[in-house]
Amino acid sequence: MKFTIREAKKSDMPEVLRLIQLLADYENEPDAVEISIEDLEDKGFGENKIFYCYVIEVEGKIRGMALFYFRYSTWKGKTVHLEDLIVEKDFRGKGLGKALYKKVMEFGGKHKVKRIEWAVLDWNTPAIKFYEKTGAKVFEDWRTVQFEEKAYLSFLKNQ
Amino acid sequence: MKFTIREAKKSDMPEVLRLIQLLADYENEPDAVEISIEDLEDKGFGENKIFYCYVIEVEGKIRGMALFYFRYSTWKGKTVHLEDLIVEKDFRGKGLGKALYKKVMEFGGKHKVKRIEWAVLDWNTPAIKFYEKTGAKVFEDWRTVQFEEKAYLSFLKNQ
Repeated sequence: MKFTIREAKKSDMPEVLRLIQLLADYENEPDAVEISIEDLEDKGFGENKIFYCYVIEVEGKIRGMALFYFRYSTWKGKTVHLEDLIVEKDFRGKGLGKALYKKVMEFGGKHKVKRIEWAVLDWNTPAIKFYEKTGAKVFEDWRTVQFEEKAYLSFLKNQ
Repeated sequence: MKFTIREAKKSDMPEVLRLIQLLADYENEPDAVEISIEDLEDKGFGENKIFYCYVIEVEGKIRGMALFYFRYSTWKGKTVHLEDLIVEKDFRGKGLGKALYKKVMEFGGKHKVKRIEWAVLDWNTPAIKFYEKTGAKVFEDWRTVQFEEKAYLSFLKNQ
């Protein structure tokens, strides 16, 4: 299958949000997506840009994307965090995912980052096997802690 | 114990690195810290600033710090990641850690972030209990994947 990868443009954000929503549907969390096209436009292309994004096209239509940003490790230095790598269901198993994966590593190399990091669900064995095969390391002993807006505001209120 | 929290200045970075090194020593990883004062100055105060930092002082000397930065969730939007919260050993159990913790939550509230996130080691039960008591949620099913610079460059080379 022929495909092309390029940097996302602001005008791609409706398609990027469509992919984010497709993934949420697939994970049985259809109502989890709270962001808007405007939010993606602002945080990807605004003055206080946070993230970077590549899209992958097949016959001129976006069928996948990788969204990532810089982080900072106090041991290693500047790193990249890969937040999402999504390929539309009917276009999987055709090398699009690996091409996006490589593109993110190339971005990391260009920016000389010390590490590229992401999260995977522990039951997602095929993904874990793929990552390990490429040379990435999966850690068993770190836990993610999340303090949601309502909860941390309520914590502050009660101090 | 009387203490004051303030935004870190560029000139605090030697002290911040001292705390980072102390934590690495404590975790039996004395050689893990590869960053320099210059790197902290650049990524905390340079043109392409990545992180924010608070320091906590007792009698005019820095005894703790919190280092964090923005991330982006494709479901929730803008978030804060707390990379490190360190209090020097002899100054623990005196409320410094909780004061820094609150300060980071206040930063999150000021910037209206949807979530504040960090990582904890699964055997660190006292920390986990504290986080949960404040209202944060610890996730069991996410695994951290890390692709170190040498490894991802070698992966790219072999493609």
